[in-house]
Amino acid sequence: MAGHSRFAVILVRPDSPENVGLAARGMANTGFTDLRIVGIDRLEPPAWRTAVHAESILEGTRFFPSLGKAVADCELVLGSTARVRHDFPLVPLEAAIGRIGEYPASARVGLVFGNERTGLTQDELGRANVRFHIPQASRQPSYNLGVAVTLTLHAIAFRGGPPPTLHRDMPLDHAAQAEAGRRFRDMLDSLGFMHETNRAFIVDKVQDIFFRMALTAKDRDVILAMFRKALEGRREREPRPTRTRKELT
Amino acid sequence: MAGHSRFAVILVRPDSPENVGLAARGMANTGFTDLRIVGIDRLEPPAWRTAVHAESILEGTRFFPSLGKAVADCELVLGSTARVRHDFPLVPLEAAIGRIGEYPASARVGLVFGNERTGLTQDELGRANVRFHIPQASRQPSYNLGVAVTLTLHAIAFRGGPPPTLHRDMPLDHAAQAEAGRRFRDMLDSLGFMHETNRAFIVDKVQDIFFRMALTAKDRDVILAMFRKALEGRREREPRPTRTRKELT
Repeated sequence: MAGHSRFAVILVRPDSPENVGLAARGMANTGFTDLRIVGIDRLEPPAWRTAVHAESILEGTRFFPSLGKAVADCELVLGSTARVRHDFPLVPLEAAIGRIGEYPASARVGLVFGNERTGLTQDELGRANVRFHIPQASRQPSYNLGVAVTLTLHAIAFRGGPPPTLHRDMPLDHAAQAEAGRRFRDMLDSLGFMHETNRAFIVDKVQDIFFRMALTAKDRDVILAMFRKALEGRREREPRPTRTRKELT
Repeated sequence: MAGHSRFAVILVRPDSPENVGLAARGMANTGFTDLRIVGIDRLEPPAWRTAVHAESILEGTRFFPSLGKAVADCELVLGSTARVRHDFPLVPLEAAIGRIGEYPASARVGLVFGNERTGLTQDELGRANVRFHIPQASRQPSYNLGVAVTLTLHAIAFRGGPPPTLHRDMPLDHAAQAEAGRRFRDMLDSLGFMHETNRAFIVDKVQDIFFRMALTAKDRDVILAMFRKALEGRREREPRPTRTRKELT
């Protein structure tokens, strides 16, 4: 069990209590204990029927109103999706686990799984530092939710890969990563980069880029400082448009 | 899907139709289609509830009265057990999959899973060429049956290991391996090696050794020929006990 307490399994709006129980059993099988649920606030009795010998995990479940709150303390968030979309990078399970290995062994990791039918929303996937899919033979069917959780945890717990060649600094926790993204967007806003027709697109893109970087505190400070500098320079120049025009030539 | 038609999933006396459905869904997820069930002769309706998009696999299920009949056409039989017993060799899932890779890519492989609570009997495990367990964090709980099937198939389908360094000849099919074992035991019997107090033990041991070898036709012919020779030699000597005694000095 040792070493797995830094991992949390986060189920977002699960429909089936049996699947929650099956996920809890998979956690017990593989040595994980931290179960969090988003969007519902209690477990129905059938969850206990499938959580064989994993009752204590169900009893320790914490409930959150939003994914952001559920992963706020995680330095690394991995979001699972069955649908291969073209609008963001997606890696197979093995590669996602490799990514965990690149970060300090003390980094808290959130493993996020969406609703059985609808999966995670675009916004929720956008919050993940790494988006992964579990390889499958054809588009249909997707893995059962409890099975997907167990496949993922089994791979983390027992599939020893080569040690990572790349060592990264500890990222900010998720809440601080989100906050850095918001500050960056505010700066873009103050520069007049965003207007009604592109705002949603830019907000998504910035969130996507920020979470994919899994920002460290230093990354954040450097990026925001650079941007602040650029912003100050622009403000200094703005009152003197002729000089600005000259500089551009 | 190509290449997986040589694999059969064999469930022995499954209690829960939901688990059979979950196993079928896991087969569809990973590209396998050949489902065989031992000890029951029909599927109850709840199997269809959990077999999302895997109905055709359930419809194609074949039912067998015994494990021997269910795996008769398989050249390689892998038996799963959650209990680590000390009376026969047991390898982790990864190693078991490595063993499949040592044999010709046309070898038919039976993957055998026992009842949810009681597992496979000693005799059934004894029929497996390779006995494996899926690594888990602690003794309890074991993996759900449908999850165990999916973990195994996912590992076969998607976990590319290094190519095997060892290439083996095609084993006999399971029925022929069993027949060779029986002929060997008959020979032992005719030699007077077996008596009431050790018969069960020797029968088990011989079966264990024969299946672990995953005998090829050549292996069988050599072993039986060698043994026949030894037997003939002994018969020739038996009428002349004095000479036999001399030879032993």
